[in-house]
Amino acid sequence: MRRSRDVPSLVAAAKAGDPRAVARLVSLVENNDEVLPAVAAALAPSTGTAQILGLTGSPGVGKSTTTNELVRAFRQAGRRVGVLAVDPSSPFSGGAILGDRVRMQDHATDPNVYIRSMSSRGHLGGLAAATPQAARVLEGAGCDPVIVETVGVGQAEVEVASLADTTVVLLAPGMGDAIQAAKAGVLEIADIFVVNKADRDGADNTYRDIQGMIGLAERAAGQWRPQVVRAVASRGEGIDDILAAIDKHRAWLADSGELRNRREARAAAEVEAIALGALRERIGTLRNGDALKSLATRVADGEIDPYAAADQLLSSLAE
Amino acid sequence: MRRSRDVPSLVAAAKAGDPRAVARLVSLVENNDEVLPAVAAALAPSTGTAQILGLTGSPGVGKSTTTNELVRAFRQAGRRVGVLAVDPSSPFSGGAILGDRVRMQDHATDPNVYIRSMSSRGHLGGLAAATPQAARVLEGAGCDPVIVETVGVGQAEVEVASLADTTVVLLAPGMGDAIQAAKAGVLEIADIFVVNKADRDGADNTYRDIQGMIGLAERAAGQWRPQVVRAVASRGEGIDDILAAIDKHRAWLADSGELRNRREARAAAEVEAIALGALRERIGTLRNGDALKSLATRVADGEIDPYAAADQLLSSLAE
Repeated sequence: MRRSRDVPSLVAAAKAGDPRAVARLVSLVENNDEVLPAVAAALAPSTGTAQILGLTGSPGVGKSTTTNELVRAFRQAGRRVGVLAVDPSSPFSGGAILGDRVRMQDHATDPNVYIRSMSSRGHLGGLAAATPQAARVLEGAGCDPVIVETVGVGQAEVEVASLADTTVVLLAPGMGDAIQAAKAGVLEIADIFVVNKADRDGADNTYRDIQGMIGLAERAAGQWRPQVVRAVASRGEGIDDILAAIDKHRAWLADSGELRNRREARAAAEVEAIALGALRERIGTLRNGDALKSLATRVADGEIDPYAAADQLLSSLAE
Repeated sequence: MRRSRDVPSLVAAAKAGDPRAVARLVSLVENNDEVLPAVAAALAPSTGTAQILGLTGSPGVGKSTTTNELVRAFRQAGRRVGVLAVDPSSPFSGGAILGDRVRMQDHATDPNVYIRSMSSRGHLGGLAAATPQAARVLEGAGCDPVIVETVGVGQAEVEVASLADTTVVLLAPGMGDAIQAAKAGVLEIADIFVVNKADRDGADNTYRDIQGMIGLAERAAGQWRPQVVRAVASRGEGIDDILAAIDKHRAWLADSGELRNRREARAAAEVEAIALGALRERIGTLRNGDALKSLATRVADGEIDPYAAADQLLSSLAE
């Protein structure tokens, strides 16, 4: 709890642009559930308006390379940029997996670029709770946009993508066809598709398939129709087109009122995730953790079904 | 509630092997939260011992083809097989994505094979709540093993994989290197790795990289060392090796006591997911859903921080 007294001064230093304070705050947000409320309270009044860009796609499609190029473009426009690279953990290695971060070394010495990896490891509320706060830290430090890069296409990624004003989904030829993309659940979260590695065989098929899937979707009048852009991020090609699509989407968000809707939905998801994280912790610590454990033993033995066990757990919670 | 009175007779019919009763019960489990407790109560005494195999990997690695071949092998051994193919939803298309299911048509007319797609769409407890019950339905109908095939590598997939006694992770050359696999968070859930499409360029590198990552991991004496198998599932090659690795893992599970540990952990996760699903529903319906909504508006306006909002929500919940 000693650290939580440092929070207001850390937040003030981060707002003044001190990179060590930013790094410290992100670490606190990531690793220390106790100080999250204090950090959130200190940041809430001055944050919540920066542009949040989500960037996602399967492993190997070139997310980090694309992020690197987008950062370069935003810097050229004079904007301070934050990047949160969300890894769904790797307890296996006992540490961060550095592979992709290395590719962002271009910006390692630029004081107007903050790049941080986030891990869900050990975090009670999961990424859905920690990531918005980390984005707020970067915003508090003057970053606009904040790019949230997620690995993979699972539910956690969809949740993280829901933090974004605009979600960019990367595809690459040979990574599977449009049906695979649909299976991976990314079609419904994408505002913009980027067919990366567009110089490779099959890029035209991927482009056509995605356009076909978009054409099939029902869409009310005035609703956003996902844009599809070709790029070869490793050569910097198509980056301007991605930026133009992002700008177009941003204009639509503002004109349609959807920006406000998304930010309220984001706030609701965030509040719910925090509340559920707290409830999960209460469940886990009921009778020093024995409540759940002894019920689980009885379920494994077939003595009681899991719904009846959950009922008992909830009764204990209410006591 | 009318349907819940049908549950005991449906369960009896499913146990007798009536495929329509099985299909109906899985649909109930997937779509109707109200009857889940009744289904679970009816199935609990006679289930919980079938072998559950998890099969996961990125889109395009050949999961369905591999599952198809495994089903063929289990059928040749005279075992009745259940397959749950877990898609993390696709509201986009308004229906199931059929691509891969088509590839399993080999077994469509075999009465001793049950194949079902599962979707998390609209399910309060998420896949983590519905999938174990669906697996119990298949087990109740005499399926052993039950294969749970998951798409992607996100948190939902890791949760579903935790249902399995043995988790098989598929990789393919050209889908990204071992670092990508590590980033995707699959290394720590794999009991067996299959390098599929092993006739392609880069397969040796993928094999070597994975062996290298496994070699780096710390492992206590007596702990399982993940096996790595090469396969070309589309030609049926390597399937025997996968089955041998599964058998070896099963023997280790039994000898080490880990089978019991995993089943208790699985029960604990299931009970927790059910309890959290119920709590989530309570939060969502507080004051007809207005409680969360009005707090979200205030958070979006910067009037209150999300932790303070979550506190208010939890207070309302306790009232």
